[in-house]
Amino acid sequence: MHIPPTHPRRESLLIREKLIDGYKNGLVALAGLIAHGRGEAFDYILGEKTIEPAHEALKAAAAALLTAKYPVISVNGNVAALVPREIVELAKTVNAKIEVNLFYRTREREEAIAKWLYKHGASEVLGVGEDASATIPELFSERRRVSPRGILKADVVLVPLEDGDRTEALRKIGKFVIAIDLNPFSRTSRTANITIVDNVVRTMPLLIKYSKSMQSMDKESLRKIVNSFNNNENLSEVVRYILDRLRRIVDQGLVINITKT
Amino acid sequence: MHIPPTHPRRESLLIREKLIDGYKNGLVALAGLIAHGRGEAFDYILGEKTIEPAHEALKAAAAALLTAKYPVISVNGNVAALVPREIVELAKTVNAKIEVNLFYRTREREEAIAKWLYKHGASEVLGVGEDASATIPELFSERRRVSPRGILKADVVLVPLEDGDRTEALRKIGKFVIAIDLNPFSRTSRTANITIVDNVVRTMPLLIKYSKSMQSMDKESLRKIVNSFNNNENLSEVVRYILDRLRRIVDQGLVINITKT
Repeated sequence: MHIPPTHPRRESLLIREKLIDGYKNGLVALAGLIAHGRGEAFDYILGEKTIEPAHEALKAAAAALLTAKYPVISVNGNVAALVPREIVELAKTVNAKIEVNLFYRTREREEAIAKWLYKHGASEVLGVGEDASATIPELFSERRRVSPRGILKADVVLVPLEDGDRTEALRKIGKFVIAIDLNPFSRTSRTANITIVDNVVRTMPLLIKYSKSMQSMDKESLRKIVNSFNNNENLSEVVRYILDRLRRIVDQGLVINITKT
Repeated sequence: MHIPPTHPRRESLLIREKLIDGYKNGLVALAGLIAHGRGEAFDYILGEKTIEPAHEALKAAAAALLTAKYPVISVNGNVAALVPREIVELAKTVNAKIEVNLFYRTREREEAIAKWLYKHGASEVLGVGEDASATIPELFSERRRVSPRGILKADVVLVPLEDGDRTEALRKIGKFVIAIDLNPFSRTSRTANITIVDNVVRTMPLLIKYSKSMQSMDKESLRKIVNSFNNNENLSEVVRYILDRLRRIVDQGLVINITKT
């Protein structure tokens, strides 16, 4: 559909189109569309920009990925639809594995996502079909399946857009979890070791940029950055930012003047 | 899908099912699913209940509909999927026309929605096919089309779930606009004459109830209620409610303790 170039919410509508294309290409689930809408609402509240606490979390995330022994990036349908190129580039930059990991797992969707990632330059995609043969004991049904060469073996797992149950399960089996989540109140945000409260579309290029610029730092300095990051404090800063922003909007008055003809 | 009766988010999940059924029945657009997710997030922030400022807006809306010369209810796919019976009942109560008005207009969807409304008791549905022959000059493409017997002629238009461009356009051509919108910051909320910040599923039965109980009031008293309503003040009250609620959540502490094994 044609979105006028002057539409004030053009960016958001273009992202929405990507999701809809992703659904039509078999990458995204119907429930993924609704989940995307929830993200849109929180992004709206943030002001649709990457705020300072997110930059702090991004630096810590880059440092954690660069010091990891075996980092894995977990990819679901929405992530694949929105940032396929960035997933591949980040994996190359920090030497991470890419694993398909779906809430509503079907063989067709796994394969469509893997094919899509290969098309965008991936050299290896784990978690498809027989490869997802290991299980996380904390979880039920198809959602517990992971790759023994991927998430099961990982020390650090990046989960852009994950559900709370699985984030908790990953923490319980001892993984260091980095989440990207627009909702600072979600269980994922609150249980991850590092949560980047930002839109995955804005934040993935930044995570690549930070990872590249920090690549030459010594491991000791990188570890210090990771250890000095406090996720609870960072989330509190995010919420304070949101509260200040909402308060300012109210103080400025909410009304838009419309010339009545 | 089976949702256990004890599930803490049962209501919200049942509403979601209605939307997904609506998509499968050709009423709801894929973008409508995303828009619904956005609403879910704002409803979550509100605490999923009808708050006091919404009751004030509901009373003003009922008074505006009862004093209108030619009220029209604008119906899109999500509204049709969620509250078809209530749309018909409200139209009968306040003697309003019902008009199908879609952001993503297709003949199939117009007709599916009209059929669905007739099935739920509507005696007339405007805005389908040739009937949507008039245009709103402020808008582009298919989105500008309205019925000359409906929105074009209306003095008061109820838009449950509308986008900002169209709400602004309706105001610019002199319509008195009543909106139902869970996002108090949206352009729709801020440009409408009366905005009910509430979930359409909770609020439509209340709007019917208020309209019925206020039906016997004299026009002068009803007009006073409309004129004394200040949308900007009402939205500010909503935002203050949200701020208080978020502050309380932060004060209770954000962190969830996970036993690391």
